[in-house]
Amino acid sequence: MFARGLQPPYYAVIFSSQRQGEDAGYARMAERMVETARGQPGFLGIESARDAQGFGITVSYWSDAQAVKAWKQHSDHLGAQTLGRQRWYAHYELRVARVERAYDGP
Amino acid sequence: MFARGLQPPYYAVIFSSQRQGEDAGYARMAERMVETARGQPGFLGIESARDAQGFGITVSYWSDAQAVKAWKQHSDHLGAQTLGRQRWYAHYELRVARVERAYDGP
Repeated sequence: MFARGLQPPYYAVIFSSQRQGEDAGYARMAERMVETARGQPGFLGIESARDAQGFGITVSYWSDAQAVKAWKQHSDHLGAQTLGRQRWYAHYELRVARVERAYDGP
Repeated sequence: MFARGLQPPYYAVIFSSQRQGEDAGYARMAERMVETARGQPGFLGIESARDAQGFGITVSYWSDAQAVKAWKQHSDHLGAQTLGRQRWYAHYELRVARVERAYDGP
């Protein structure tokens, strides 16, 4: 659930999205993408929450910018991106950010 | 719901948290903190999702590192941070990141 113990600097990909329509294979694809991401070079962790209205934020963490770029261009992930645009998301915002500092608690 | 149209570079504060216990003033404080943040210098936007199990991600966006630092030290926010550690969160991770690139869709 939490990505713990990561040491900055590293990269975060912040994906905010509003789901639309029926599931239409979404849950299975989302699960598969997480499993695929876990196997990629530089993958550090992932956190995800979606509310009852279908608004969600997923943040994946990566060792460096090259790992982010490679994941963006991964063939299975490209297929999922196309389906996301065509079918699953009413809107999304995607941000690539360099994590400079991190804390945890309590 | 979405923070739209922001032009990199800017800063993201990624706050992932697991809620615990009863509400105990949480919802009211969370709403008040969003309203207070909106009035701060350098505030650009905020996105938030929490699932039915109480795991949530809130990302606030700021113009620069100084704005992030000022918000961290805001007196009302300091009070909320203390209550969060004492009462509301079983665990949290907080990350300060510089957004380098952004996209939206579909």
